[in-house]
Amino acid sequence: MQVDIGNALAAVAEPGVEESALEALDGRVADAHERIEAGRDRDEFGYAALNLPHTADPEAIRTAVEPVSDADAVLTVGIGGSALGAATVTTALGPAGVDHRVLDNVDPAHVRATLDELSLADTAVQVVSRSGTTAETLANFLVVRDAMDRAGVDWAERTVVTTGTDGPLRALADEHGLPALSTPEGAPGRFSALSTVGLVPAAVRGHDIEALLAGARAADTEQSGSLFDAPAYAYGALSYALDERGAGTSVMMPYAEGLEPFAEWFAQLWAESLGKNGGGQTPVRALGATDQHSQLQLYRAGPRDKFVTLVRPRERPERPVPDTDIEALSYLGGTGLGALLDAEFEATEASLAAAGRPSVRIEIDRLDAHGLGELLYSMEAACILAGELYDVETFTQPAVEWGKRAARGLLGGSDSPEADAVADKHRFVVE
Amino acid sequence: MQVDIGNALAAVAEPGVEESALEALDGRVADAHERIEAGRDRDEFGYAALNLPHTADPEAIRTAVEPVSDADAVLTVGIGGSALGAATVTTALGPAGVDHRVLDNVDPAHVRATLDELSLADTAVQVVSRSGTTAETLANFLVVRDAMDRAGVDWAERTVVTTGTDGPLRALADEHGLPALSTPEGAPGRFSALSTVGLVPAAVRGHDIEALLAGARAADTEQSGSLFDAPAYAYGALSYALDERGAGTSVMMPYAEGLEPFAEWFAQLWAESLGKNGGGQTPVRALGATDQHSQLQLYRAGPRDKFVTLVRPRERPERPVPDTDIEALSYLGGTGLGALLDAEFEATEASLAAAGRPSVRIEIDRLDAHGLGELLYSMEAACILAGELYDVETFTQPAVEWGKRAARGLLGGSDSPEADAVADKHRFVVE
Repeated sequence: MQVDIGNALAAVAEPGVEESALEALDGRVADAHERIEAGRDRDEFGYAALNLPHTADPEAIRTAVEPVSDADAVLTVGIGGSALGAATVTTALGPAGVDHRVLDNVDPAHVRATLDELSLADTAVQVVSRSGTTAETLANFLVVRDAMDRAGVDWAERTVVTTGTDGPLRALADEHGLPALSTPEGAPGRFSALSTVGLVPAAVRGHDIEALLAGARAADTEQSGSLFDAPAYAYGALSYALDERGAGTSVMMPYAEGLEPFAEWFAQLWAESLGKNGGGQTPVRALGATDQHSQLQLYRAGPRDKFVTLVRPRERPERPVPDTDIEALSYLGGTGLGALLDAEFEATEASLAAAGRPSVRIEIDRLDAHGLGELLYSMEAACILAGELYDVETFTQPAVEWGKRAARGLLGGSDSPEADAVADKHRFVVE
Repeated sequence: MQVDIGNALAAVAEPGVEESALEALDGRVADAHERIEAGRDRDEFGYAALNLPHTADPEAIRTAVEPVSDADAVLTVGIGGSALGAATVTTALGPAGVDHRVLDNVDPAHVRATLDELSLADTAVQVVSRSGTTAETLANFLVVRDAMDRAGVDWAERTVVTTGTDGPLRALADEHGLPALSTPEGAPGRFSALSTVGLVPAAVRGHDIEALLAGARAADTEQSGSLFDAPAYAYGALSYALDERGAGTSVMMPYAEGLEPFAEWFAQLWAESLGKNGGGQTPVRALGATDQHSQLQLYRAGPRDKFVTLVRPRERPERPVPDTDIEALSYLGGTGLGALLDAEFEATEASLAAAGRPSVRIEIDRLDAHGLGELLYSMEAACILAGELYDVETFTQPAVEWGKRAARGLLGGSDSPEADAVADKHRFVVE
């Protein structure tokens, strides 16, 4: 993986970072790297996530999915970090003859439509919840199980569980003899794509999960105590430095349709890890070239509060554009869709620079399992470094607990002052 | 449609707006409303978009799609405003037996996968470009046409064109006798969902486009010269006032899976219309309840630079959650997925208020054609009002032209200094 921060330097952009400021920051990067490495050595919560490419057991995952290897579709029932990593991996690796669908919301119309579209007898269900009590996930799982029952399908034969060592989901797996994988110790959900949490659907689809882990390990070898040697740290440190200079918004804009969920995965990683103590960059997910026709106006001419990360694979499968006798379009003939997309990539990058807006370019060789493993691992390492620089608790998400207690109270699952607060809402209605 | 701004007032939130400040702003709203109405009366560019629900001709759209009414799928080939409105409408109105797919990017792998998945003989193609020269759209259309040729399908019998009164696409339609609809006069792409641009796939799918337009007209009757009487203006004025007080980020978070593209459509509307002269709010699209497990940590505990718009239908089709003998989950039994989703909605709203973060609640009666028409129209009116308050050229997008010239130059379509600038990129690579 290559990171080019040239267009985010003060020589080009405002806000931008002076090279001298990066040199000054590099001492803090070295210190942070030492803390991260020490945390990894001790398998400390969170830091241990960077060990997953070494500790994950692809063989165990393959064994767990063996009973459902005949599936035409795999349905992930999970939410947040229990779903985004899996969707990121399968979408990036492309069509595989086995559909991957995700129930990561409790919208009744959507759940019904999804169940209607699937042949349940030919569907593998992956249910993921570390605690085994996540309300949305368990409610959806109860609905899916019931739908299978009604369709005369033995749900226990179609279900693979990923959960912690105890809890209701573990108990259920034990009771029914379901294939059950353990969520990795020491990795919060958003850092667990490269584990039993994120790799089950890829395994059902027959993707090369070994190559994915190998790509992640290759990225690990690029780590060092200096941002000038380590692409992931260059990205993490630059993001932090740009935020300090007013770029509070981080736009993640891959130029590859298959990386659309990656931008969403990145947004969770960044928001939940760094959005603390009144600080943290706001991640915005975009997609090139599509969002040039939607968001670029704002990025070039709006407030100087953001920087844009442009991601692309250096090589793509090409699709030639047929020649045409339409004069105004003749320049398209003889080119290809990939060449057009790459021209748009370079044009957008240059157009941001021409407007003095900071951007960063990230390139991987190809959008394959190895390249994706590199990319995901590097972004995790970048995020963990940034968390050290911000000095926040990167691996927790305390602010979401209030709402969970309120929702549970509203559903009658417990008495809670939070649920009482819902009734006290300050209303000012215009209709 | 109902807008509740109670949780965005200074009594609850920081940043928040004093009621007295809204009263003071209401005079500017009255002036803006007069300008908007005058622009509508003159069919002035942009303002005329608010007349579309009255001028659109659903019968002409139904006639144009009649030759492809047997289709199993409709494929929109367009980008930006030429695609998002159509996807927003069909996704919100739900499954209809006719698949709707969109090619709004020039990723060769994605285009290939899409064409592979469709039965081209049973597919209706909607190609949309006002100028008839949009590079991405025309390149994709040339590829689709070629794929149909190769599959032995007469593309001319499967294609419906929406374009301006002249240009290459109009010429092509004339030459081959294709059903051709005109893009509406006076409405930029992002304001043209309720027209020939956004309604063709809905018509192929048999959705009630008359009810959609009727919903928009109903929203039009709610307009008045005061933000205290007009929900759309309440939203637009409040957004502006919150931005002035530091909420530079506007999170659009519907609690309905079918409104996910709506959030994307809103993001284009807001970004391209208001992102000018160094100002404008940055729209962020989110989805409830899913993003509670991804973004809420940041919204509650990150910088006080954003406000969250929570959107929901008041009624939903319900899906009961089956009873379970699992003790920890027994509170879910007897409830439904919709009740759970609504509890999450209220819990999230209250949790933002408890943290003093501003939010707005928008409700429509149901997510049907009428409700969707109300919602889309109201957001357009809100955006146009906000443009008046910001005093920007709401209906142009000048900042994207630089990149278009650069891309065209790179592809050899013209000499351009912009393309030369691409080669001069400032590089600083870490690998």
